[in-house]
Amino acid sequence: MFYGAIEAGGTKVLCGVGLQTGELVDHVSIPTRGPTETIRDIVTYFRSHPVSRLGVASFGPLDLDPRHATYGSITNTPKIAWRGVNFLQSLKNALQLTVFIDTDVNAAILAEYAWGAAAHLTTALYVTIGTGIGGGVLVDRRPVHGLMHPEMGHIGIRKDSSDAFPGICATHVDCLEGLASGPAIAARWQVSSQDLPSDHPAWALEANYLAQAIATYIYVLSPQRIILGGGVMQQTALLPAIRRAVASNLNGYIARRELLTEEIDHYIVPPQLGQLAGLRGGLWLALPSMDMEP
Amino acid sequence: MFYGAIEAGGTKVLCGVGLQTGELVDHVSIPTRGPTETIRDIVTYFRSHPVSRLGVASFGPLDLDPRHATYGSITNTPKIAWRGVNFLQSLKNALQLTVFIDTDVNAAILAEYAWGAAAHLTTALYVTIGTGIGGGVLVDRRPVHGLMHPEMGHIGIRKDSSDAFPGICATHVDCLEGLASGPAIAARWQVSSQDLPSDHPAWALEANYLAQAIATYIYVLSPQRIILGGGVMQQTALLPAIRRAVASNLNGYIARRELLTEEIDHYIVPPQLGQLAGLRGGLWLALPSMDMEP
Repeated sequence: MFYGAIEAGGTKVLCGVGLQTGELVDHVSIPTRGPTETIRDIVTYFRSHPVSRLGVASFGPLDLDPRHATYGSITNTPKIAWRGVNFLQSLKNALQLTVFIDTDVNAAILAEYAWGAAAHLTTALYVTIGTGIGGGVLVDRRPVHGLMHPEMGHIGIRKDSSDAFPGICATHVDCLEGLASGPAIAARWQVSSQDLPSDHPAWALEANYLAQAIATYIYVLSPQRIILGGGVMQQTALLPAIRRAVASNLNGYIARRELLTEEIDHYIVPPQLGQLAGLRGGLWLALPSMDMEP
Repeated sequence: MFYGAIEAGGTKVLCGVGLQTGELVDHVSIPTRGPTETIRDIVTYFRSHPVSRLGVASFGPLDLDPRHATYGSITNTPKIAWRGVNFLQSLKNALQLTVFIDTDVNAAILAEYAWGAAAHLTTALYVTIGTGIGGGVLVDRRPVHGLMHPEMGHIGIRKDSSDAFPGICATHVDCLEGLASGPAIAARWQVSSQDLPSDHPAWALEANYLAQAIATYIYVLSPQRIILGGGVMQQTALLPAIRRAVASNLNGYIARRELLTEEIDHYIVPPQLGQLAGLRGGLWLALPSMDMEP
């Protein structure tokens, strides 16, 4: 039995086929263009790679309320051509399959829970810091949706007094994403984040901003582990600096050994599934076992 | 069949007896002192008012992990005499009853879900703004615990440039609780919050700070409704000011009609169960139906 998986991002769409074990047996990358061309290429892939069910890990915001006529649509994205597109229904109609959908970050935490760094936990958070900043969270082993789904990258943080950069979020200007996403780093320092040396002051500022956000996520969600992924985290000096800043920020308030300096390396961790966490999360969504503990 | 309920707070402990319907048939108030005298008075009450099961809504922080030997204890509270006291086990031993425990704010949101302002929802938040600031949250109809339990009052917010008050949180100084709790208002303005007239500038500042926190809670948790209780909310001018400030803070980012200015009065609401939400939450914890939808 083969299951299909999609991870739809702003620049590329990964399509893959996998097994119930979580193993991917094939995957391809398709450039993200307008919805018509992109969905046509996805459909072509799955016509030549037949699957029994399909799971979609998508950029958002998404309508994830199954009671709505617009269930599975992309809502107010800055990608204008995709606004209002019912991604779920388009795939169902074209492929005549059972299709499941969730946010890319909810899918990533589901995959890390099923096969990676959040195995055996019940409440865990995945944060991606890249072109944007977003978070997916499991509570009692299930992704949080609520009114819509979390949009964790848009919380307010305190600007450092040394930081004259105004921020780039189109809605909030200087929210976390506006100050600490990859494009914000590039705009502030006039150089791409992957070209900044590990001792550049950019990284201390970045660690400060991300640690503020992580402390807030700990106070609000009380996760058992936090996984940090995304392109900005490729700078390996960043993760230890974030751990130190989170411990300092919490200042001992949450009296749990997991948050002590000696233990925090096991609490704030990199993804185990690397760049394929989102695609494997799509696969997890497609599995009939989704409601069960892996 | 009678069920017992306790709401333990910093100044008083409510003890009550109720029915499966949620109705309280008796309750008393006991002053909070050291654990020995206070627990002795609680035990005396339930010896003369026999119940089949008991639910405790307690101040914290609490150890709520049933796998721990310290399950049901109060951990690093500023109330030194209570630190390390196993509240749950003391009551079990003295009364020889099945006893359940959760935080006061988790109990309050459970009661509002069972019989009040969060009925028929699955993901909802209760925030109390009083001596301290805390939040209880249901996700998929169950209270969030995770690593410990949320401590939502301790998130960072941005100080207003007009605000010279340093903050009073013993751990973080100028976190939300340090800047916006009842004692913070009293210390900043040198007058108790209930004596501040509704047109005093204190309330615009308070609305700004609480709205920042509520916007953060929306981005992180995506609740379907937010209930604001506690002594500071007795100032009736505050709730409308908070609603306006939240709508302005979100700036349309979450494209849901519930958050529009016309609808937000039904999204950010007062408690329906008033001052007894916590005690009735204790009752809800004691009911055998706790895991079922009410």
